[in-house]
Amino acid sequence: MIIVLTPQSTDKEANEILSKIERAGLKPLYMPGVERIVLGALGDERKLAGLQLGAHPFVESIKPILTSYKQVSREMQSHDSQVKFGNSSIGGGTFAVIAGPCAIETKQQINLSAKIVKKYGGMGLRGGAFKPRTSPYSFQGLEEEGLKLMKLAAAQNDLPCVSEVTDACHVEMMSRYVDAFQIGARNMQNFGLLKAIGQIDKPVILKRGMSATIEELLLAAEYIFNEGNTNIIICERGIRTFERATRNTLDLGAVAYIKTKSHLPVIVDPSHGTGIRELVSPMARAAAACGADGIIVEVHHDPQTALSDGTQSLDEQGFESLMRGLLPFISAAGKVIAQ
Amino acid sequence: MIIVLTPQSTDKEANEILSKIERAGLKPLYMPGVERIVLGALGDERKLAGLQLGAHPFVESIKPILTSYKQVSREMQSHDSQVKFGNSSIGGGTFAVIAGPCAIETKQQINLSAKIVKKYGGMGLRGGAFKPRTSPYSFQGLEEEGLKLMKLAAAQNDLPCVSEVTDACHVEMMSRYVDAFQIGARNMQNFGLLKAIGQIDKPVILKRGMSATIEELLLAAEYIFNEGNTNIIICERGIRTFERATRNTLDLGAVAYIKTKSHLPVIVDPSHGTGIRELVSPMARAAAACGADGIIVEVHHDPQTALSDGTQSLDEQGFESLMRGLLPFISAAGKVIAQ
Amino acid sequence: MIIVLTPQSTDKEANEILSKIERAGLKPLYMPGVERIVLGALGDERKLAGLQLGAHPFVESIKPILTSYKQVSREMQSHDSQVKFGNSSIGGGTFAVIAGPCAIETKQQINLSAKIVKKYGGMGLRGGAFKPRTSPYSFQGLEEEGLKLMKLAAAQNDLPCVSEVTDACHVEMMSRYVDAFQIGARNMQNFGLLKAIGQIDKPVILKRGMSATIEELLLAAEYIFNEGNTNIIICERGIRTFERATRNTLDLGAVAYIKTKSHLPVIVDPSHGTGIRELVSPMARAAAACGADGIIVEVHHDPQTALSDGTQSLDEQGFESLMRGLLPFISAAGKVIAQ
Amino acid sequence: MIIVLTPQSTDKEANEILSKIERAGLKPLYMPGVERIVLGALGDERKLAGLQLGAHPFVESIKPILTSYKQVSREMQSHDSQVKFGNSSIGGGTFAVIAGPCAIETKQQINLSAKIVKKYGGMGLRGGAFKPRTSPYSFQGLEEEGLKLMKLAAAQNDLPCVSEVTDACHVEMMSRYVDAFQIGARNMQNFGLLKAIGQIDKPVILKRGMSATIEELLLAAEYIFNEGNTNIIICERGIRTFERATRNTLDLGAVAYIKTKSHLPVIVDPSHGTGIRELVSPMARAAAACGADGIIVEVHHDPQTALSDGTQSLDEQGFESLMRGLLPFISAAGKVIAQ
Repeated sequence: MIIVLTPQSTDKEANEILSKIERAGLKPLYMPGVERIVLGALGDERKLAGLQLGAHPFVESIKPILTSYKQVSREMQSHDSQVKFGNSSIGGGTFAVIAGPCAIETKQQINLSAKIVKKYGGMGLRGGAFKPRTSPYSFQGLEEEGLKLMKLAAAQNDLPCVSEVTDACHVEMMSRYVDAFQIGARNMQNFGLLKAIGQIDKPVILKRGMSATIEELLLAAEYIFNEGNTNIIICERGIRTFERATRNTLDLGAVAYIKTKSHLPVIVDPSHGTGIRELVSPMARAAAACGADGIIVEVHHDPQTALSDGTQSLDEQGFESLMRGLLPFISAAGKVIAQ
Repeated sequence: MIIVLTPQSTDKEANEILSKIERAGLKPLYMPGVERIVLGALGDERKLAGLQLGAHPFVESIKPILTSYKQVSREMQSHDSQVKFGNSSIGGGTFAVIAGPCAIETKQQINLSAKIVKKYGGMGLRGGAFKPRTSPYSFQGLEEEGLKLMKLAAAQNDLPCVSEVTDACHVEMMSRYVDAFQIGARNMQNFGLLKAIGQIDKPVILKRGMSATIEELLLAAEYIFNEGNTNIIICERGIRTFERATRNTLDLGAVAYIKTKSHLPVIVDPSHGTGIRELVSPMARAAAACGADGIIVEVHHDPQTALSDGTQSLDEQGFESLMRGLLPFISAAGKVIAQ
Repeated sequence: MIIVLTPQSTDKEANEILSKIERAGLKPLYMPGVERIVLGALGDERKLAGLQLGAHPFVESIKPILTSYKQVSREMQSHDSQVKFGNSSIGGGTFAVIAGPCAIETKQQINLSAKIVKKYGGMGLRGGAFKPRTSPYSFQGLEEEGLKLMKLAAAQNDLPCVSEVTDACHVEMMSRYVDAFQIGARNMQNFGLLKAIGQIDKPVILKRGMSATIEELLLAAEYIFNEGNTNIIICERGIRTFERATRNTLDLGAVAYIKTKSHLPVIVDPSHGTGIRELVSPMARAAAACGADGIIVEVHHDPQTALSDGTQSLDEQGFESLMRGLLPFISAAGKVIAQ
Repeated sequence: MIIVLTPQSTDKEANEILSKIERAGLKPLYMPGVERIVLGALGDERKLAGLQLGAHPFVESIKPILTSYKQVSREMQSHDSQVKFGNSSIGGGTFAVIAGPCAIETKQQINLSAKIVKKYGGMGLRGGAFKPRTSPYSFQGLEEEGLKLMKLAAAQNDLPCVSEVTDACHVEMMSRYVDAFQIGARNMQNFGLLKAIGQIDKPVILKRGMSATIEELLLAAEYIFNEGNTNIIICERGIRTFERATRNTLDLGAVAYIKTKSHLPVIVDPSHGTGIRELVSPMARAAAACGADGIIVEVHHDPQTALSDGTQSLDEQGFESLMRGLLPFISAAGKVIAQ
């Protein structure tokens, strides 16, 4: 439920109403705007009706939130959210390129990859240290050691860095190394992990589950938001369909759709979304064209030797070419590249 | 199998080899290029081996075609095909916008819609006269009467027109009215229809089936090509997945993928691909960005009254806005709009 | 809309009301029951409301049909339909086994296969003469010649036979050879073909499309029923999903669901539904267990040499074993095998 | 790699070879059989080749394991595994029925439900205390308090109990209350959780992820097995497809397929697999028919008041009817009900 106060209302009235909401056992939300104070109340709608807030002299109007997700919806906040990542931010009028290897492998590999990312205009470094691998016999990542290597490489190249968290009990340790967390497709509905990430204030890139509906994705974001962490970036990374020519089916319609329904920034992963190096660049352009706020791509200084996802990783030349080809589309979208 | 002749070879040698191929019960193909004559041979690979063409003095090299589709593959023809539609063509360096109502309803409706299409830069008119509807109780189209109305509207607005064919026995009659045929998603594997369309020389827009793999789509095109009609335009129109927020999941990755595997032009249907008016424009831009050769969109002078697909149709203002917003992306893609 | 007449009503009153319905431009249906006459009216619900039939003295009650399909729904007819096929019938208390090769290949092959089918208790012979093949370069079937061979084999083994029809213009010719038609998955929404089959009175096995919802499947059946042919057998043959270990995902939940929603008999194709010989028998048992009225399976006297679908075909020993293992489950379901 | 020793071999020779395997950095497996000792070696195949075990006098044969999962494969162990649950076991010649409410709600509710389960032949009690819910605003379960209530109810009705674990850090606490763990669909690839469960020795029911392939499911089981816990029961609970008439598409073909590829017991969840009460019984029968080792179903003493999944839960009468109808199919399958 959204409660719009009259223009004359001050924080005093707002607080009074917020207290009422809280006393009724509902979750109160305070959203000051430029022209008006807007309040929210989440919970049992019948209890809310009992408060008869419509009759309150400082309440101008009350409207229900029709979607199942509330705090991440555009109904609750009509303007785009921006999420700070390093010295820059994601969302709003920029287009962010986060890049790096699938997995952190060696000091040299993450350093060389970071250098490439920085050189051609990437704004953030990605790299996996805890790899959720389908088989127990596949390379599982360098864990904390990998994070140390990435932090160093990021610092040397003046880039913020992001890595996937797979377990709530790693959050504290990882916080010492990363500037943002990624929640991977397989953990999109790992609700314990969502809640744990919701209790810190670092940004989180929340990837869509392989067969998650858009509604489920936004409800997963709601879990994080509801715990207090509003620095959420949604990531479309392809869904699982009958088609196997591409690794996944990149659902750019979902990007355009989410932008109409949620105020959160949305980025696209064309590497996992296609699994084919040659398709990364066209899909990155398409992402810019359909309204995405950025991309996250796999870049490796030497994809032939990559321990995972080599076939979808770009080398230096590939990344340079991606960035060059992407700029006209970012401009066409009325945006500038995030620095 | 592709047979590249030596630079010295002339049509005489080519014909000699083609005869050999034919006598062995294989399908011979003649593909003269700028620098060299290239021949093809389709059929039982063992028979071909028996010909021992590799030893022929005028044969430079022989290579197998690795994909299951042959004649529509880039291995067979590396440059982009262009398909003439009206006075313009689709494929190559242009971006074509074909637009019009889902169904032809009245003389006034198709006229007004055609006027809008022409006014803002559409290069072709679409309209359905034989509607494949899920329920027998839904409006089934005006049939031949509708085609007459569309032909008139197209002529008055100097546009070529295209309509869906659902039955091989309609081909001859429809040929009197339309400049191109569309084969819809439900008939992508109606092989009798594919063969019938393969025997005429009008262009055909072949839509991807709702759950057709890319390989099946290109094999359906191969059916048409193999009968002799090479004027094929592939159309990605969304696939059926678990996601229901959008009507279909528009698979733009398939567009980029097909452009690497086939020489045929590829267009995108963002109207059926999303089912939501607000998403048509972003997905049209994304189509231009990922390498598509055009779009086919639903435009209706008054979507509220449309007998089918009203929620995904653009009105005059919507189409004007689509075209205006699309141009920068066509330019970014290094293309010009097809006139 | 279903119109239940009072117990006192006779055909005279029924006809009077049916005339009213017809004059209003609606489709009247006459369904005499044991205790009461039930009428139906299909079409524009507003027109029907205008008739004010509720006020008619011989009308006891009126109720809407809530599903989009009407005539094939259980709301319209609560008891199970039975469809005659040869001297036996499908639906009701029996379990029918129709078997035979994927494609009719030679006189000997179809004869030997038919003999196996008969010997172990099959009640009908299947065989394809017009094969809808994904590639134009695959074996396309023996066409009319194949049907002649099948008719002969069927007669010699005292079995009725069924074959797939892929084109409306083949219906008349095929009628001379087959006792029932099959409409394959790829043609489930070939509405011209559905209408053509609706105008004859031979039984039709309607297979579910690869990505057809249950509602679409029943609406396809409604197309046939609406033209007058009520001899429809629904066939679940697996749907296309992300899983590729099996050729398709056999949706037995759909069988149980359709049995609650429609009065039509439902059979299952465990051969196409799995694509793996070893799974045919367990899935046939499961079909019997979940309420199906029969199965249609691929049997070939020598699967190694089969021109199509060899890996999913049973040989003599496999079919004998299938039948032996199936009987206890048919009994457990309270049914007897259809002879 | 599977290493079959000669009949003369003793544990002495086996240990010698196991040591070699271990020294080479591979994982050794010891699998004594009735007639012969079989050893396994997992890891880098090249290292194994270097050992030249084929030349060892006590090695009879060496064969590779072709599937990506090793220890859970039938290649590694050809006979069916049995997993002890309470005083009974799952797998082998019995059919197990585990039942209970979706969520533990009150002392009375779990007691009454347990009583029903016991009365009609259920062999285990299920109930959720940590509920992974799509929305943060839905009932999330009674947590430890719920487990206490279930343990009590289970003890009073002489049933072992199972509950879903969603977080590795709950394993120890939950072990005090439950006889088996369930890993839900959303956590099938929560590899940290799989490893944690792999380190205890209580049985685990591993549910298939919503869009997990069979191979991924068996690899998830391999994660658990590889840590040392071999008490794994696979559970097919429906996959996500385009069809929405049923909540999920129950993939019984997967059950039959897994039974050919793995030695682990497989059970079916017809409640989540369909989401429709009327379909639970037919699908339970189909599960028995296609070779499943049991079912897990939702039973609630009063489904109308259930806090979750009421529409798919059976009441006392429904469960009684399920069990009565199921028995003939268990017999037909040559099994007896697990007590």
